[in-house]
Amino acid sequence: MNEDTLRLLLQGIKQRDVSVEEGIERLKVLPFEDLGFAKVDYHRNIRQGFSEVIYCAGKTTEQIVAIAEKLAERGGGNILGTRADSEVYQAVRERIPDAEYNALAHLIMIKRGKQEDRGNILVLSAGTSDLPVAEEAALTAEMMGNHVERVYDTGVAGIHRLLSQTDKLSQARVIVVVAGMEGALASVVGGLVDKPVIAVPTSVGYGASFGGLAALLAMLNSCASGVSVVNIDNGFGAGYQAGLINRLGEN
Amino acid sequence: MNEDTLRLLLQGIKQRDVSVEEGIERLKVLPFEDLGFAKVDYHRNIRQGFSEVIYCAGKTTEQIVAIAEKLAERGGGNILGTRADSEVYQAVRERIPDAEYNALAHLIMIKRGKQEDRGNILVLSAGTSDLPVAEEAALTAEMMGNHVERVYDTGVAGIHRLLSQTDKLSQARVIVVVAGMEGALASVVGGLVDKPVIAVPTSVGYGASFGGLAALLAMLNSCASGVSVVNIDNGFGAGYQAGLINRLGEN
Amino acid sequence: MNEDTLRLLLQGIKQRDVSVEEGIERLKVLPFEDLGFAKVDYHRNIRQGFSEVIYCAGKTTEQIVAIAEKLAERGGGNILGTRADSEVYQAVRERIPDAEYNALAHLIMIKRGKQEDRGNILVLSAGTSDLPVAEEAALTAEMMGNHVERVYDTGVAGIHRLLSQTDKLSQARVIVVVAGMEGALASVVGGLVDKPVIAVPTSVGYGASFGGLAALLAMLNSCASGVSVVNIDNGFGAGYQAGLINRLGEN
Amino acid sequence: MNEDTLRLLLQGIKQRDVSVEEGIERLKVLPFEDLGFAKVDYHRNIRQGFSEVIYCAGKTTEQIVAIAEKLAERGGGNILGTRADSEVYQAVRERIPDAEYNALAHLIMIKRGKQEDRGNILVLSAGTSDLPVAEEAALTAEMMGNHVERVYDTGVAGIHRLLSQTDKLSQARVIVVVAGMEGALASVVGGLVDKPVIAVPTSVGYGASFGGLAALLAMLNSCASGVSVVNIDNGFGAGYQAGLINRLGEN
Amino acid sequence: MNEDTLRLLLQGIKQRDVSVEEGIERLKVLPFEDLGFAKVDYHRNIRQGFSEVIYCAGKTTEQIVAIAEKLAERGGGNILGTRADSEVYQAVRERIPDAEYNALAHLIMIKRGKQEDRGNILVLSAGTSDLPVAEEAALTAEMMGNHVERVYDTGVAGIHRLLSQTDKLSQARVIVVVAGMEGALASVVGGLVDKPVIAVPTSVGYGASFGGLAALLAMLNSCASGVSVVNIDNGFGAGYQAGLINRLGEN
Amino acid sequence: MNEDTLRLLLQGIKQRDVSVEEGIERLKVLPFEDLGFAKVDYHRNIRQGFSEVIYCAGKTTEQIVAIAEKLAERGGGNILGTRADSEVYQAVRERIPDAEYNALAHLIMIKRGKQEDRGNILVLSAGTSDLPVAEEAALTAEMMGNHVERVYDTGVAGIHRLLSQTDKLSQARVIVVVAGMEGALASVVGGLVDKPVIAVPTSVGYGASFGGLAALLAMLNSCASGVSVVNIDNGFGAGYQAGLINRLGEN
Amino acid sequence: MNEDTLRLLLQGIKQRDVSVEEGIERLKVLPFEDLGFAKVDYHRNIRQGFSEVIYCAGKTTEQIVAIAEKLAERGGGNILGTRADSEVYQAVRERIPDAEYNALAHLIMIKRGKQEDRGNILVLSAGTSDLPVAEEAALTAEMMGNHVERVYDTGVAGIHRLLSQTDKLSQARVIVVVAGMEGALASVVGGLVDKPVIAVPTSVGYGASFGGLAALLAMLNSCASGVSVVNIDNGFGAGYQAGLINRLGEN
Amino acid sequence: MNEDTLRLLLQGIKQRDVSVEEGIERLKVLPFEDLGFAKVDYHRNIRQGFSEVIYCAGKTTEQIVAIAEKLAERGGGNILGTRADSEVYQAVRERIPDAEYNALAHLIMIKRGKQEDRGNILVLSAGTSDLPVAEEAALTAEMMGNHVERVYDTGVAGIHRLLSQTDKLSQARVIVVVAGMEGALASVVGGLVDKPVIAVPTSVGYGASFGGLAALLAMLNSCASGVSVVNIDNGFGAGYQAGLINRLGEN
Repeated sequence: MNEDTLRLLLQGIKQRDVSVEEGIERLKVLPFEDLGFAKVDYHRNIRQGFSEVIYCAGKTTEQIVAIAEKLAERGGGNILGTRADSEVYQAVRERIPDAEYNALAHLIMIKRGKQEDRGNILVLSAGTSDLPVAEEAALTAEMMGNHVERVYDTGVAGIHRLLSQTDKLSQARVIVVVAGMEGALASVVGGLVDKPVIAVPTSVGYGASFGGLAALLAMLNSCASGVSVVNIDNGFGAGYQAGLINRLGEN
Repeated sequence: MNEDTLRLLLQGIKQRDVSVEEGIERLKVLPFEDLGFAKVDYHRNIRQGFSEVIYCAGKTTEQIVAIAEKLAERGGGNILGTRADSEVYQAVRERIPDAEYNALAHLIMIKRGKQEDRGNILVLSAGTSDLPVAEEAALTAEMMGNHVERVYDTGVAGIHRLLSQTDKLSQARVIVVVAGMEGALASVVGGLVDKPVIAVPTSVGYGASFGGLAALLAMLNSCASGVSVVNIDNGFGAGYQAGLINRLGEN
Repeated sequence: MNEDTLRLLLQGIKQRDVSVEEGIERLKVLPFEDLGFAKVDYHRNIRQGFSEVIYCAGKTTEQIVAIAEKLAERGGGNILGTRADSEVYQAVRERIPDAEYNALAHLIMIKRGKQEDRGNILVLSAGTSDLPVAEEAALTAEMMGNHVERVYDTGVAGIHRLLSQTDKLSQARVIVVVAGMEGALASVVGGLVDKPVIAVPTSVGYGASFGGLAALLAMLNSCASGVSVVNIDNGFGAGYQAGLINRLGEN
Repeated sequence: MNEDTLRLLLQGIKQRDVSVEEGIERLKVLPFEDLGFAKVDYHRNIRQGFSEVIYCAGKTTEQIVAIAEKLAERGGGNILGTRADSEVYQAVRERIPDAEYNALAHLIMIKRGKQEDRGNILVLSAGTSDLPVAEEAALTAEMMGNHVERVYDTGVAGIHRLLSQTDKLSQARVIVVVAGMEGALASVVGGLVDKPVIAVPTSVGYGASFGGLAALLAMLNSCASGVSVVNIDNGFGAGYQAGLINRLGEN
Repeated sequence: MNEDTLRLLLQGIKQRDVSVEEGIERLKVLPFEDLGFAKVDYHRNIRQGFSEVIYCAGKTTEQIVAIAEKLAERGGGNILGTRADSEVYQAVRERIPDAEYNALAHLIMIKRGKQEDRGNILVLSAGTSDLPVAEEAALTAEMMGNHVERVYDTGVAGIHRLLSQTDKLSQARVIVVVAGMEGALASVVGGLVDKPVIAVPTSVGYGASFGGLAALLAMLNSCASGVSVVNIDNGFGAGYQAGLINRLGEN
Repeated sequence: MNEDTLRLLLQGIKQRDVSVEEGIERLKVLPFEDLGFAKVDYHRNIRQGFSEVIYCAGKTTEQIVAIAEKLAERGGGNILGTRADSEVYQAVRERIPDAEYNALAHLIMIKRGKQEDRGNILVLSAGTSDLPVAEEAALTAEMMGNHVERVYDTGVAGIHRLLSQTDKLSQARVIVVVAGMEGALASVVGGLVDKPVIAVPTSVGYGASFGGLAALLAMLNSCASGVSVVNIDNGFGAGYQAGLINRLGEN
Repeated sequence: MNEDTLRLLLQGIKQRDVSVEEGIERLKVLPFEDLGFAKVDYHRNIRQGFSEVIYCAGKTTEQIVAIAEKLAERGGGNILGTRADSEVYQAVRERIPDAEYNALAHLIMIKRGKQEDRGNILVLSAGTSDLPVAEEAALTAEMMGNHVERVYDTGVAGIHRLLSQTDKLSQARVIVVVAGMEGALASVVGGLVDKPVIAVPTSVGYGASFGGLAALLAMLNSCASGVSVVNIDNGFGAGYQAGLINRLGEN
Repeated sequence: MNEDTLRLLLQGIKQRDVSVEEGIERLKVLPFEDLGFAKVDYHRNIRQGFSEVIYCAGKTTEQIVAIAEKLAERGGGNILGTRADSEVYQAVRERIPDAEYNALAHLIMIKRGKQEDRGNILVLSAGTSDLPVAEEAALTAEMMGNHVERVYDTGVAGIHRLLSQTDKLSQARVIVVVAGMEGALASVVGGLVDKPVIAVPTSVGYGASFGGLAALLAMLNSCASGVSVVNIDNGFGAGYQAGLINRLGEN
């Protein structure tokens, strides 16, 4: 039942060709597809600061360029391409010249929304090797209009480096903790603050880290309250979740 | 928007207090909840031969009795209670005297639908210890109106026992294979027939069976085509899937 | 005991050189190999619409070409080569010029059987990256003589895209659901329909998807009845199983 | 260095027995233990609405009673005892008569803080068996001064039950999703809303659910953005995280 | 096709009612079930020294007694019941008075075959807790007519205890090694001898032994050649395999 | 070759009945068993402060009592019984009246060696539920003649509790860290000190702790150097290893 | 204590400079290293038909050539290099011109021992992709002097192919079964014969085969008695074990 | 609060502008960052013999060179770069000409501290393929000023090679055992000595070694006391732990 069908039905009622009860019966089984979901989506996108996110891994360059172009034409919001290599970026930039690229985080950023600067999200990372994931989180949150503080290289083996950042810990509204190996940083941070901590395990490590499993399990079993966890290496997800949370404060 | 609100809207259109276009706009965002899904469910239940299935594990006896009573009052179909112990059954029977119980399969059966006897589903099991799961599958399929043949104790260590059942293999339209330990029976049967095989790994075994994992993985990796798999010990799921498939033949 | 030996034995009985009881004794231990199994196979192939399926992974190009040629010469049915790269296809086409290739699904198709167009199988996939597996399923089912509808990119994160396809859901007789990541699509579809759903987990994802394990476990634990599961990325297996099921309806 | 030692040092400076530079040197190595952390803790507790949470599993009844009494005497906030059985509760109530107990959620609640009623947290659960975990989450959030809406039994196998709750979905500021088996509810909800979703996998299920692992992995691999995850059955952790997030909106 | 049908067919040929060619055609599709497999089985049982082995776990006492009686009546070989508790044994002994029981190994033994005393099988176990599995292996081998030497409590942490048994190591023809924890004994023994070693991992251990997984993996990865492995705690399987091997030497 | 045989050989050489070269040849193949290993063991026991350790789990009370008596009669060192319940202890004490018992750590202690008091071993534990394992470690080390400091309940969620113990951290020569859940304490302690840390994961936790696996993996992946790990819940092993290490300092 | 020291001691006894008792004392602590173990090894090698096996994976070409040369010079037996690529072989052949190579099985063979032809070992494999492992097993057994029958491509999906080989099954003394995917062949063969079956899981498969884990677990859980298992892809180990077993029959 | 702020506060007290009690209050909340942690670190580095260790995996060459230069300028200790390839080394050597490289162990060594030669650490390895990890351990310990003995290629399959090294076993103060495959060497060595054994599982192996998991689990489950374990392939960690332990003996 598309809009035309619906119009015909209502006109039938208006013209009393169709009874109200019959209309009710027919509308009760109104198929889902006719309900104008696009509108809901439209609202949703505007509110989130992204028109869409393109997960580039496992898509061909052609597919990515086509999606990006379509989204860019539709307008109305920032576009983010995650896990994009530089070759993909080159192809996108040929069509969308203002597309930017962060090679470390493997992000394509097409900034079209209004730039906000909301509250404070703190992104902490444990080691140098965790930087790509941390930057993915930080840039994602920035694209959503958040002010992001970065404190990197604060692994628990040198706990004083973390403890010397109490100012930033206390000023943040949401904290993203990025750590591989044993992932202990999430618990320590969770114990120091009383704000939401989003923990991102990374695949940094070897042997019994089993591709990030060790850090993932550690973060899920955090003895500190207030820690929730996203997938291994999912910097985007953590930055996005932090952005959603931080937006709550401004309403 | 409930039915009354919808009636008011349509009456407004009928009485020309509301324009057709305004009606379209309002119906476009018509919330899901007002669409009378129960009706869809109703149809669905009738067609499937069950008004509902109650998974009893993890529910209190009181909860189960209450759900069973409500479903029985609504009428119109068989009711199946899976993973029910005899104590639960006693409580159910006090309220629903015609409730039956199969202790081996841990099933409560309340037969209210018309009894059909459709085609042939064959349930094969590898060992004596697999019987409870096999019976759960067989009784579930029977409750859905299927004729079920049972061939038990045909493990691959005595391949001739299976091979001596070629008649039943060839007469069946769908085959459910129930096996624990190494679960090889599914592959052997899948290689002998060209009909859908639904494989049920069981937790029968010890040590490196890891609670049915060995049989599950074996069945998923079957070298025979035409085998799909349900959860470990999920006799109900296999019987139900077999019943859905078998119904296709009669339309 | 080959056919000649059997003939000699029966002629011996006919000529009364061999007693009936002696013949019974000898036939009782008649070795399996002499029973003309090829005939059984022959029937089986004809009925299934395939003379054989060649799983190309782990075989050399030479082996694949040799098998394909032998099957093509034998005639009588379609031949399918799964997990074939384009180099293998080139080698096959040199010998079998009418061999076709689908690069996305990595399938070599040699169409020799009569082309049927049976019922409706619906192949749903969750994301763009799941397309190769979905196409493998769809093409396999088509090769078996089924009419296949494809609805791609209907992941549960945009549930309306799925809900807008209720027509196709209701017209299908069997549904193949292809999804990676959390594999939730299988449960949602299983809850919407009362027909057999064959779920294919894919290895699409990263981190804690553990190569498709997350989707596999989710599908096996589906809270919806009527879902059975094949191996990770096994599009062929799902399409084949769907084809077997769909054939039931026509007899 | 305790407070007395510090006083002596400062008095020495005041009386010019100790030079300023010497004081700096001594304070630079001021051991951690002397810094009055309790005060920090004190502030923290006040702000969170809990003076402390007692994880009762693995503690003796005596230990739990002793800790509860000490916390109750200190005053200033609510006290929560998680995973407490009724026997433990009886022992606690003998000493703290206003202690309350929720048997379903296994929570002891000692309400001493001021009762707030902040915003809206929505707790969704998939099945009846998930109720204990869902209630643990809801009550925890309520104890922290949040208004909690509960929508239970909305598993994805009956997607309409969820879709009929769009009002509550849109009114909530934070959503807790509790689901066992395949855990698909988190992804579906995450796709419908643009607010933070905290997902709690439960150990509800059998076979290849592996004690909640299936739901956990599914939630971590959610194709919907905005979903973060806590440990299996960790209703407290989800409620607490939701409470921390919801508090952001009021400052 | 049973024996009577076969007789009719052959008589038809004899009486020239049926042509030889027609007989060939019919016999070609002769179903498996008619081939007198029991005879094959009969031979097999005689040769192995067991008429049958009853795996008692997961069977009811009634089932076990019934099977044991039937086997005992058939005669001709020893009967072994594995994983039987004493209650089951009492029930069996009421019907079969000469049934014996070994409580440590949980074995019911009904000795009916002729007692042989073949070669030397050595059963080594690492620790006191491995004794039940070791005895299951030893008694199984003895029931098959083998002479069994036992050397227990020779874990690798006291390597001299093993090294002081070189006589027994050199006199054995086959060696069964039973070890839990790290399962290192299999490798050490495998390195000392040049005869087949059958390794049995046991579930003895805790923590990261994961129910015998550690020992299982260790034994599968043995750096010594000549070691093959059976399931965790499968003393019967090891004893049986050792018995099969040892029999080779006597022909 | 026992001592007598050896004596005969040497007397033969002395009496020139056996040539030196022949003696060399015979001694070259001297079997292992004749080399007086008991003597080596004897020395070893004396030096370690234990005549033997009895791992009581999986042994019968009778076996344990028998072993304990034999060891006690042999004299010369302390005897430790690990994982012993109180019933076992009662039985032991009937025969060995000075046997002591620690119910928390499930240890039977028979002190017969001279009591030393060596250096400082620090045992840290993260939570109250880790106490049994921590005490097992502490008492084991004490039985070996070490002075043990205990600092319990210093989980990383309250990092200041740990940091306030810098004195004890700096005075210890070896540190045992006992922690369940995410096991982060080992990394934090390893980062604060430059002495050997022996980490003991415990099975404290639920859900994705998987019986201590999360803590185990975390500790193995510690980003701090100087941390080595023993089995889950292996307090004895950690205390013993710490004792071996601490003894190095005194020679 | 080397041979010279031993000679001095025995000469001291001969010349009565050393008493017999003193000699006994000194010989009791005779270190292991002086006992001429090489001799033991020498015997062992002769008997096994190999002077040594070189596992080439993880060794440099230089290391492999050096080891091979040393072994070849020592003489007296065949030399086998497993998991060798052709480059390694070229380097070996430059120094040892009669070295042979089997590219499929990745084996270097240097035949120096006398060629025997003992009994019958049957190597069965399930699929074409299992051939490299099957050949590794077969060639290893042949190098040890066994006659090897090969029956390849007998997967259980076409059970008749296996059943048609009953002659070879009955003539073999030991059977090696090589299978990937679900590994069911081992159970089926184990059920057909009463001789030792050595099962080799292979890593052939994808998805939930998890690199051979599915086949490994299936084989360990075989419902047929008489099956023992070696590591995934360990064709050498299976061939070697089969060779050890087969040798028993000839003594 | 930095040093200047602290000085101002103390001068305020000295000049009686600030009361002692006010000073106490302000110092109580003295933030962590101002406490001169660098000093603690400084001491720590000097004592350990390393100014820092650079884990090179996952860092860019530029990052590594920059860190190395900074550390080299600071002076005062040896610098170790682990998991460095030769390309990284070339870049480091351009800036730090006395940097050395061990290609087998992938270590960059910059020797600046005084060279000590303390006690005896024994590094044992099981096979040739374990050499890189063993050398990483040995060189790390040497860089810390320890005398290291190496005994390689002493796998338990040839136990006499190990037993012939009793001298070295008895002379060592700490022993590092490096082994892949089944990792049994750690248990055997742990049973022979009464000194601390640090076990390093390696990823050497295939199939069910699962990247070193088999050896890891075996070592954690060692039946010998006195064995603790580091991560798979973590030669550095073992050498470092051994160095920390060995230093205890000299104070």
